Amino acid sequence: MAKRNKKSAAGRAPKRRPPAVAGDDTTITALTLPPQTLSPDMAAYFKKCEEKLGFVPNVLKAYAFDSAKLAAFVAMYNDLMLAPSGLSKLEREMIAVAVSSHNRCYYCLVAHGAAVRQLSGDPPLGELMVMNYRAARLSARERAMLDFVVKLTAEPWAVEGEDRDALRRAGFTDRDIWDIAAVAGFFNMSNRVASATDMRPNSVYHKQAR
Amino acid sequence: MAKRNKKSAAGRAPKRRPPAVAGDDTTITALTLPPQTLSPDMAAYFKKCEEKLGFVPNVLKAYAFDSAKLAAFVAMYNDLMLAPSGLSKLEREMIAVAVSSHNRCYYCLVAHGAAVRQLSGDPPLGELMVMNYRAARLSARERAMLDFVVKLTAEPWAVEGEDRDALRRAGFTDRDIWDIAAVAGFFNMSNRVASATDMRPNSVYHKQAR
Amino acid sequence: MAKRNKKSAAGRAPKRRPPAVAGDDTTITALTLPPQTLSPDMAAYFKKCEEKLGFVPNVLKAYAFDSAKLAAFVAMYNDLMLAPSGLSKLEREMIAVAVSSHNRCYYCLVAHGAAVRQLSGDPPLGELMVMNYRAARLSARERAMLDFVVKLTAEPWAVEGEDRDALRRAGFTDRDIWDIAAVAGFFNMSNRVASATDMRPNSVYHKQAR
Amino acid sequence: MAKRNKKSAAGRAPKRRPPAVAGDDTTITALTLPPQTLSPDMAAYFKKCEEKLGFVPNVLKAYAFDSAKLAAFVAMYNDLMLAPSGLSKLEREMIAVAVSSHNRCYYCLVAHGAAVRQLSGDPPLGELMVMNYRAARLSARERAMLDFVVKLTAEPWAVEGEDRDALRRAGFTDRDIWDIAAVAGFFNMSNRVASATDMRPNSVYHKQAR
Amino acid sequence: MAKRNKKSAAGRAPKRRPPAVAGDDTTITALTLPPQTLSPDMAAYFKKCEEKLGFVPNVLKAYAFDSAKLAAFVAMYNDLMLAPSGLSKLEREMIAVAVSSHNRCYYCLVAHGAAVRQLSGDPPLGELMVMNYRAARLSARERAMLDFVVKLTAEPWAVEGEDRDALRRAGFTDRDIWDIAAVAGFFNMSNRVASATDMRPNSVYHKQAR
Amino acid sequence: MAKRNKKSAAGRAPKRRPPAVAGDDTTITALTLPPQTLSPDMAAYFKKCEEKLGFVPNVLKAYAFDSAKLAAFVAMYNDLMLAPSGLSKLEREMIAVAVSSHNRCYYCLVAHGAAVRQLSGDPPLGELMVMNYRAARLSARERAMLDFVVKLTAEPWAVEGEDRDALRRAGFTDRDIWDIAAVAGFFNMSNRVASATDMRPNSVYHKQAR
Repeated sequence: MAKRNKKSAAGRAPKRRPPAVAGDDTTITALTLPPQTLSPDMAAYFKKCEEKLGFVPNVLKAYAFDSAKLAAFVAMYNDLMLAPSGLSKLEREMIAVAVSSHNRCYYCLVAHGAAVRQLSGDPPLGELMVMNYRAARLSARERAMLDFVVKLTAEPWAVEGEDRDALRRAGFTDRDIWDIAAVAGFFNMSNRVASATDMRPNSVYHKQAR
Repeated sequence: MAKRNKKSAAGRAPKRRPPAVAGDDTTITALTLPPQTLSPDMAAYFKKCEEKLGFVPNVLKAYAFDSAKLAAFVAMYNDLMLAPSGLSKLEREMIAVAVSSHNRCYYCLVAHGAAVRQLSGDPPLGELMVMNYRAARLSARERAMLDFVVKLTAEPWAVEGEDRDALRRAGFTDRDIWDIAAVAGFFNMSNRVASATDMRPNSVYHKQAR
Repeated sequence: MAKRNKKSAAGRAPKRRPPAVAGDDTTITALTLPPQTLSPDMAAYFKKCEEKLGFVPNVLKAYAFDSAKLAAFVAMYNDLMLAPSGLSKLEREMIAVAVSSHNRCYYCLVAHGAAVRQLSGDPPLGELMVMNYRAARLSARERAMLDFVVKLTAEPWAVEGEDRDALRRAGFTDRDIWDIAAVAGFFNMSNRVASATDMRPNSVYHKQAR
Repeated sequence: MAKRNKKSAAGRAPKRRPPAVAGDDTTITALTLPPQTLSPDMAAYFKKCEEKLGFVPNVLKAYAFDSAKLAAFVAMYNDLMLAPSGLSKLEREMIAVAVSSHNRCYYCLVAHGAAVRQLSGDPPLGELMVMNYRAARLSARERAMLDFVVKLTAEPWAVEGEDRDALRRAGFTDRDIWDIAAVAGFFNMSNRVASATDMRPNSVYHKQAR
Repeated sequence: MAKRNKKSAAGRAPKRRPPAVAGDDTTITALTLPPQTLSPDMAAYFKKCEEKLGFVPNVLKAYAFDSAKLAAFVAMYNDLMLAPSGLSKLEREMIAVAVSSHNRCYYCLVAHGAAVRQLSGDPPLGELMVMNYRAARLSARERAMLDFVVKLTAEPWAVEGEDRDALRRAGFTDRDIWDIAAVAGFFNMSNRVASATDMRPNSVYHKQAR
Repeated sequence: MAKRNKKSAAGRAPKRRPPAVAGDDTTITALTLPPQTLSPDMAAYFKKCEEKLGFVPNVLKAYAFDSAKLAAFVAMYNDLMLAPSGLSKLEREMIAVAVSSHNRCYYCLVAHGAAVRQLSGDPPLGELMVMNYRAARLSARERAMLDFVVKLTAEPWAVEGEDRDALRRAGFTDRDIWDIAAVAGFFNMSNRVASATDMRPNSVYHKQAR
């Protein structure tokens, strides 16, 4: 602990092992899929991503072999994460990361961990969502929300009326409960598509909002 | 076993307990959501369901409080389950039920169990998907497909290259693997939305294709 | 969902795959066991089954290679499921199915799922016991009983005084608790004998009481 | 480790805490059951136990409130554990303890752990079955047998043809496989009846065959 | 049960199988490690063990290939198990065994099971800690302590403020909670070193304090 | 995704919620422990930490209420992580993080995740160890090592000869296997002490080596 020597370590390591992820962001999944074919709408959407974010998230490039699938994914994603809701955008991203942490999804933890750091202006909050949300200092509302989505992720068969009531007691409306369930469900889907295909996140996320 | 008396049992039971599900199909979820508001497209889609199926699946009614959410769900569902694919419609329904069995999702097991019975013309196959797909007599292709989706459901973090290779060895293309992952992911989402909201299937499914 | 076409599916499927279970009910387990040798008592019992049920349950045929084992099984089964008890026959069958659902035992789910449908006169109740008893509308008594047996099945080491007290609060006597435990224990045995030997249920159960 | 002082510890401990089990062997379960009523056959059997073992095993006393239940239990137990079989009596007891170890059943571990010590003449073998059978030096036959029963106990839904083949490769016949399954099933039942009722073993077992 | 014949069993068994553990206590782990090299301090400590216990515990011999590692282990062990603490030595040994039971560590269960038997003067207490601490008659203080350490062992990520509060309500100080955590943590370490290396306990423990 | 607006989010969030961790690094655990009392050796060690790292790691401050405990911890830690070994320092830190990821230990993931980033000069490698080591591009040696320690963490009872052989095939000596086991064991201890006491990492780690 006391003796770790930054300089020599940093100097020696690159000789010892290649980087753990490809640095060029060209491999997106482990599957050989048909080439990208974007409808005009989706091409415009990719351009918008480039302008606003500076890059197109790799998950979109992964779906881009089929414009209908891409469009369906984008429509659902944008509705869930960006449309008006009783949940703030940060709360929706916290759900995304807590669910992805249970499922240990590398893609989603990197991309949405960055979103939590950015939206909250509190970088350790992003780390806590990735590592163990129970260790974070959360409001009662946030805690109830994350307890619900992690139970829904881990043992959906056991979610019942008392779990919904705990959300109501924490101040959520039934309409909010729908959104909590829908966002948690969505990342249970995305985590599995990403893990099944070994989807790799854009490397730019790693340095964002540290 | 030998002494069970059908008549007296059938006669006595209705006195003893109310039915385990509401018989009138009016309660769809445990949430009080805004009233149904269908866009013209979605209204037309509901009409089409009535004509083709004789009813509107309750999952669609559940989403109908918000036409944008409904449209996104329908677009993704129809693409995954009905669009051209290297997977047959029956195979996609088998995935749906095997995933829902792991997650013990009442709604999806009832609705998609009926679909497997119907599409296969082999009612016990539907039961086997609900109960334990490992007990079914399956082709090597079907078995590899279901092993993959159940592992992806149970421990997505552990799905790796050798799991994809097992699918390839069973004859699936990389494009097929995407569809397998996408259907399995979708039902991991739907199972959780259904469990979180206590969604109830249309009672008509119970008697279909027995 | 909307576009499923019953006729073509039913027509196409039989060409595509053989049935998931043998249709002739001749294979009972995956083991090659000695030929059936029935004592006079057991021969009479098989005849009684034929008369009352119209068939001999395959589990009995599986045990029939050894009359002593068969007689011990029949004696215990009939005492547990049919003898006077504070539990109704339907309640005992509900325990059988909830336990078998946790253990995903194909044989017991088919045979005893049919019994729940029949004894209750409420076919969806049978489905609910197979799929997820937590989704059923149950009395407090039924729910306490099933919570106990599923915990006893899943983590017997953790069943303690407070679990017994929950049954007492739901109106069960200590004598009833014995029967609940004994029926749950019995199906934890039968589920394992069936799974270990790949026991196949009589196909007649599938259509019963739908 | 080095400083533990036997004398003072032994002297101090009895003052500090009452014994962890009642010393008088009068409480058999946590249930208040009807008084013992033995049929002549069962009374004779209890007498035989007293003569041969010096005591009546508490599990028999627990069942003794109902002679039919007791007789069914005794018939099944004696057939499984004592009738001619391709499995030795020691092998059957090893199965009993390995299953009970997975289920952490106090009653069965005490009673059948003593049986393994006694039948093997190798006391540490009894301890190993209680603690972790994987740490024992076992023959390939014994190891295959215990791997099968522990998998059957932990995840019966996953036992399939290749598990049976592993037993066959280890030299077991199909008839032996039935007995392995039946003994493992029986202790999965007994473990749950014992845990559900807090059954206490006769204290005499503790010192046997040490 | 009634028919087990001690004499013939004891006579037959030694012919049938070699002992489950090597009887000569010469094999300590499954690893080929450098030869023992004891610093003067550690040599003196081994001599002290011989004098006080009559033997050197095998775990110490396992570490003896490197005196620095051995000294660090001994220092931590002796501080945790023998230094002044709000926990009695028996309580610390009960923690050791309950943790080791969850982890099914053969070495630690044998060695520390003996310590519980010895320190308590109540041999069945040792058995209960090995088999299932929930079946023991424990004080509220002991039960709270063991519930905490077993949860900390099984799902450390879920230990939170309410778990610490349960210990406080049972009379433990914050300083005591540290010691509970530290002892439980230590055996989670030792269990894994022992399992990873197949460490074998000294055979003398088996007969101690029966 | 495309519409996230960094500026307004960053501006709004601080109003909405307090930081997820205390910013002042004054609270180290959830326990009220005796005041720090450092022996001269330990005081010198703390001074050395300040000089080399710029701070004293909070885990050391947590132990500082008792100099004997602190010294034992430091001796074991420094031997394991810094002494000569067939494992590089980076490999030992990778073990630390993979084990802590399974146990979801916030303290250790933050502190040792930083160490992996620093020693490797490859920041994403640190993230991968935290999130899911299976998603990293690892050498066969690294992968075998991490598979072993994660199995040893998750189910120590199931680690056997074939697991040790897999390490040998990957080029590790028996002496190396000891070190792998010892480091994995150590973090299984530290993870539990940290989780039991809600230990908080120094906030400086968050920004290191990004």
